[in-house]
Amino acid sequence: MYRWASDLFPIHRSLMGEGNRTTLRYLKGLLPDLELFEVSSGTKVFDWRIPDEWTIRDAYVCQEGKTRRLIDLRKSNLHVVGYSTPVDAVMSLEELQPHLYSLPEMPDAIPYVTSYYQPQWGFCLTHAERAQLTPGNYRVVIDSSLAPGSLSYAELILPGQEDNEVLLSTYVCHPSMANNELSGPVVTTALARWLATIKNRRFTYRIVFAPETLGAITYLHRNLSQMKAKTVAGFVVTCVGDDRAYSVVHSRMGDTLADRVATHVMKRHAPDYQDYSYLHRGSDERQYCSPGVDLPVVSILRSLYGSYPEYHTSKDNLDLISPRGLHGAFEALRKCIVGIEGNYRYQVNHTCEPQLGRRGFYPTTHTPQTQAAVQDMMNVLAYADGEHDVFQIADRIGIGFEECLTILDKLYDAQVITRSAAGQVGAAARHSKGA
Amino acid sequence: MYRWASDLFPIHRSLMGEGNRTTLRYLKGLLPDLELFEVSSGTKVFDWRIPDEWTIRDAYVCQEGKTRRLIDLRKSNLHVVGYSTPVDAVMSLEELQPHLYSLPEMPDAIPYVTSYYQPQWGFCLTHAERAQLTPGNYRVVIDSSLAPGSLSYAELILPGQEDNEVLLSTYVCHPSMANNELSGPVVTTALARWLATIKNRRFTYRIVFAPETLGAITYLHRNLSQMKAKTVAGFVVTCVGDDRAYSVVHSRMGDTLADRVATHVMKRHAPDYQDYSYLHRGSDERQYCSPGVDLPVVSILRSLYGSYPEYHTSKDNLDLISPRGLHGAFEALRKCIVGIEGNYRYQVNHTCEPQLGRRGFYPTTHTPQTQAAVQDMMNVLAYADGEHDVFQIADRIGIGFEECLTILDKLYDAQVITRSAAGQVGAAARHSKGA
Amino acid sequence: MYRWASDLFPIHRSLMGEGNRTTLRYLKGLLPDLELFEVSSGTKVFDWRIPDEWTIRDAYVCQEGKTRRLIDLRKSNLHVVGYSTPVDAVMSLEELQPHLYSLPEMPDAIPYVTSYYQPQWGFCLTHAERAQLTPGNYRVVIDSSLAPGSLSYAELILPGQEDNEVLLSTYVCHPSMANNELSGPVVTTALARWLATIKNRRFTYRIVFAPETLGAITYLHRNLSQMKAKTVAGFVVTCVGDDRAYSVVHSRMGDTLADRVATHVMKRHAPDYQDYSYLHRGSDERQYCSPGVDLPVVSILRSLYGSYPEYHTSKDNLDLISPRGLHGAFEALRKCIVGIEGNYRYQVNHTCEPQLGRRGFYPTTHTPQTQAAVQDMMNVLAYADGEHDVFQIADRIGIGFEECLTILDKLYDAQVITRSAAGQVGAAARHSKGA
Repeated sequence: MYRWASDLFPIHRSLMGEGNRTTLRYLKGLLPDLELFEVSSGTKVFDWRIPDEWTIRDAYVCQEGKTRRLIDLRKSNLHVVGYSTPVDAVMSLEELQPHLYSLPEMPDAIPYVTSYYQPQWGFCLTHAERAQLTPGNYRVVIDSSLAPGSLSYAELILPGQEDNEVLLSTYVCHPSMANNELSGPVVTTALARWLATIKNRRFTYRIVFAPETLGAITYLHRNLSQMKAKTVAGFVVTCVGDDRAYSVVHSRMGDTLADRVATHVMKRHAPDYQDYSYLHRGSDERQYCSPGVDLPVVSILRSLYGSYPEYHTSKDNLDLISPRGLHGAFEALRKCIVGIEGNYRYQVNHTCEPQLGRRGFYPTTHTPQTQAAVQDMMNVLAYADGEHDVFQIADRIGIGFEECLTILDKLYDAQVITRSAAGQVGAAARHSKGA
Repeated sequence: MYRWASDLFPIHRSLMGEGNRTTLRYLKGLLPDLELFEVSSGTKVFDWRIPDEWTIRDAYVCQEGKTRRLIDLRKSNLHVVGYSTPVDAVMSLEELQPHLYSLPEMPDAIPYVTSYYQPQWGFCLTHAERAQLTPGNYRVVIDSSLAPGSLSYAELILPGQEDNEVLLSTYVCHPSMANNELSGPVVTTALARWLATIKNRRFTYRIVFAPETLGAITYLHRNLSQMKAKTVAGFVVTCVGDDRAYSVVHSRMGDTLADRVATHVMKRHAPDYQDYSYLHRGSDERQYCSPGVDLPVVSILRSLYGSYPEYHTSKDNLDLISPRGLHGAFEALRKCIVGIEGNYRYQVNHTCEPQLGRRGFYPTTHTPQTQAAVQDMMNVLAYADGEHDVFQIADRIGIGFEECLTILDKLYDAQVITRSAAGQVGAAARHSKGA
Repeated sequence: MYRWASDLFPIHRSLMGEGNRTTLRYLKGLLPDLELFEVSSGTKVFDWRIPDEWTIRDAYVCQEGKTRRLIDLRKSNLHVVGYSTPVDAVMSLEELQPHLYSLPEMPDAIPYVTSYYQPQWGFCLTHAERAQLTPGNYRVVIDSSLAPGSLSYAELILPGQEDNEVLLSTYVCHPSMANNELSGPVVTTALARWLATIKNRRFTYRIVFAPETLGAITYLHRNLSQMKAKTVAGFVVTCVGDDRAYSVVHSRMGDTLADRVATHVMKRHAPDYQDYSYLHRGSDERQYCSPGVDLPVVSILRSLYGSYPEYHTSKDNLDLISPRGLHGAFEALRKCIVGIEGNYRYQVNHTCEPQLGRRGFYPTTHTPQTQAAVQDMMNVLAYADGEHDVFQIADRIGIGFEECLTILDKLYDAQVITRSAAGQVGAAARHSKGA
């Protein structure tokens, strides 16, 4: 995953444009079934309209009459404000200043700034560089153009035994930043490759790579009724590369299957994880959980966007993320998916306790361990009432879902319990009686 | 308000009688549309019957053969037990003692005692005065009569755009006491005068001045079905004059719109207010919230009846209340009403987040303040789902209802959201899904 | 009760057999209407089958060629593993060891071991005795037989004015142990004798004496639909003899009438009682509360099975239990039953507060006590709304159910309130709105 991130790091992504297409084609190399889509400028998507596509060829600032570039897009694609209008002019430092963005409190970081919907131009630079600009005239060049084009996104559908779906969504629209953003696509890609290898996959997986906000809105515009009818749970995958923290951002009402799964998994995977309500949202759960959309979607992250100092600066680079950081997030999400795949409502087949002894489920030797194992099995049976799902049973008993599934599988194979998938889609999953 | 209280202070009010009518006529001077009602003695009102009307002309105690009045109604109308039967006799101090009421623990206060439904007579005096009574014979005179008359109450209906109503109820039945009672009628009068000036008043206001308990019962007997069908929220206004505390007494089940509004407003208006359950009730919420009546009524008070030492004594006088105390309660109630007037369920018009930028709702400069403002607006939109009302949105986000209304108004004017008033009356308001 | 336990202590009870019948016949001597039932070996009961009946005539171990019995059933009927297969052999100490059970951590206690469903034989002895066994050959005799017979249980139905039932269930299957087991049958017997004396018993009482687990399963197999349709509340009575603690084990969902009653009563009867969830269950609530059975059954105990050191050893003898211990449990259960008998939903007959004064419910003298009494009565009336039952009213107000019943009886006799028994059976009792 880290290598993929390194490959993708230099590409100049934006809301739309060639950088995005290059990125998606690279991912298609890793996920052959990934399908790429283009949505033309001008297309109306709900309350929004796809804007024109921005192309940036060069951007720099140098002293008038000199050639040494003091600010140079070739050194960092963060140097130019995203969607800057073209400019080629000579101006005084005073005139230039309102177009410069730097961070006094982080003097060696270049901030990340965009202006997708308001025409303007600007340069981003470190505050240290800015301080060295001396009064005088500067040549200011942004060689960009804005023209009808298309918004690019990619979708991978991995069909399962059920039509019901699990959503994984990540975004492709940030220039060279590693935790926010490349960690998202690469962990999602790794999850997709792992999912593709699972035989007898139960759920269908809908995996989406799209620019943040407008991409998610566009995607929902095209797929909403389908997704509302089928989505069991979903995860927005972003900021999953550093190794400092784990976080969960909950859905709007905080009570979907995705919320319950994320809470259950993270309490064991990373007991000191940060649990954020929807008020702390910041990525595409904003769309997936909006009123009327209300998909059961949460976000599982390492350090939350906005909460770490390197966020939206040039310091969010490949040093910030690590194979270990990426792998930890991958594992957390993998566990959630394993749990959702195994999540049924189970119901014991017999009135009163079944006789476990004649099925070999009673230990012949008694140790504290075997006693605890029998007790766990009896407890699982006690709540296998057709109303509790696996996570609800596990939470009630105080065991991990994996252990709960192991017991349920054993009982299911012995035909002591039956199972049903009823009532798991979307908002319906909320109102399960066992909750 | 303080001046009105001063004017009304000397009048000798009781359960029924001329003092009450004088008081109501004074209020009619301030509220020309106030309508006065009389309900004849003997009228059955639910489980009760309007008793005869008590007239008190004189009451005193002096030593036999002397004229200096040791206890004298003319000095304080608290000196005679309310509804005392007539007496004109000479008796020993021993015979008199069982008819005297004083407070050993507050030796310079005259207690307030009534006996509306059991015929008896008595005098109230300070414990200091009582201690000075020497053995011997006393002339004891109470010149009172009990005869068919009528219970007096007054009602002001301020019609609004909606038939649905907000109830304000206060009582008129206590002789010269200031916090419990006159603060109630004067704050209610001030609220009524303020309400009368509001253009485009949304709700109809039902404002009731009646003797406590029996007056409320009588009023409900005449208006219950109407009130049950229309009441959105209501407030019993009493003990709103001192400046030592704020209190809320909740409705019987504690979950009506009035409860939510009172809690929301008081947490901001007076964060250290005392929150009392219905078990601490003591005024006409006893009737308004009784089983089967179950109107959404709470009480907002300064110091709770029974909780302050001067309660039901001559110390509850004009020194106890203050313009500042009255004004604080007025403001708390005014805020509740403003909130209720603006309380709709709002619903965003668009699937996914609406584009705020093109409507000018995104700041062009970014400061922590503008960021917070955008975040509040986004949060309001996130819960404008047609299920949360204004107070539920505000409570979820953690902002005041005024701020929430400001944002909602802006969004409503921009046609980003629509609103509905559904499900707000009475018990129905309880079961809102957003709660 | 203690004498009954002393009488029953020496009898060798087991899952089935003559010891059980002797025990039940003894109880029938105390409860003439007790009816005894036999269910033949081989009968299928849900997932189980009644096994053959075990008869034990003699069991001992002595050194080869000697007659002094080193382990001797005649000294304690715990010495032989329950349902041991017959053996008559000479073997070395090494061969004997796997058949011996002792407790190193309690060297002077004989453990209690059974093997109902797996054919094997064994002896239980103190660890001290075991340590004295010297290498050499031993004569090992168990003179037992396993042959078709019957499982014995007894049932007492005490009819009430209502068909609805309260269940008391206890078990008869342990050899000489006092707290776990005899305390259960003797306290249950005492409760049955007390219940038989109650005139105008409201509920029908179903009182069951059966072997643990299989007996309860058998009983449910024969009576389930009846019990589901009629059971208001039930109590498993076990471990009710020592005087060290009180405990409650709740039903599977923890929200039945039995749970509420047990919590209410125990908070007052023994404020430091231990409250255990269903995860700590261990007796026949395992069957009564199993999914699909879901009777409203809890267990009220003194020291919880498994939680006290003497559990399932020869130390659980008559010294462990006491008249005082038994009586305390009897009282706790008696209070629960009194509460359930009096538990209705009450509804005030009048709109607004009824006038208590003219019914003599207002004190003529005012003291803090009379004030509190009036307040309690007003509070009871406030929640006599037809939705709260007695325990819900009492819990809301913070008084004991006895006090609440006293007030309600007074109001009921004065026709101020009416009552109904609606919605009290089984799971329906769970969903009462007042909860």
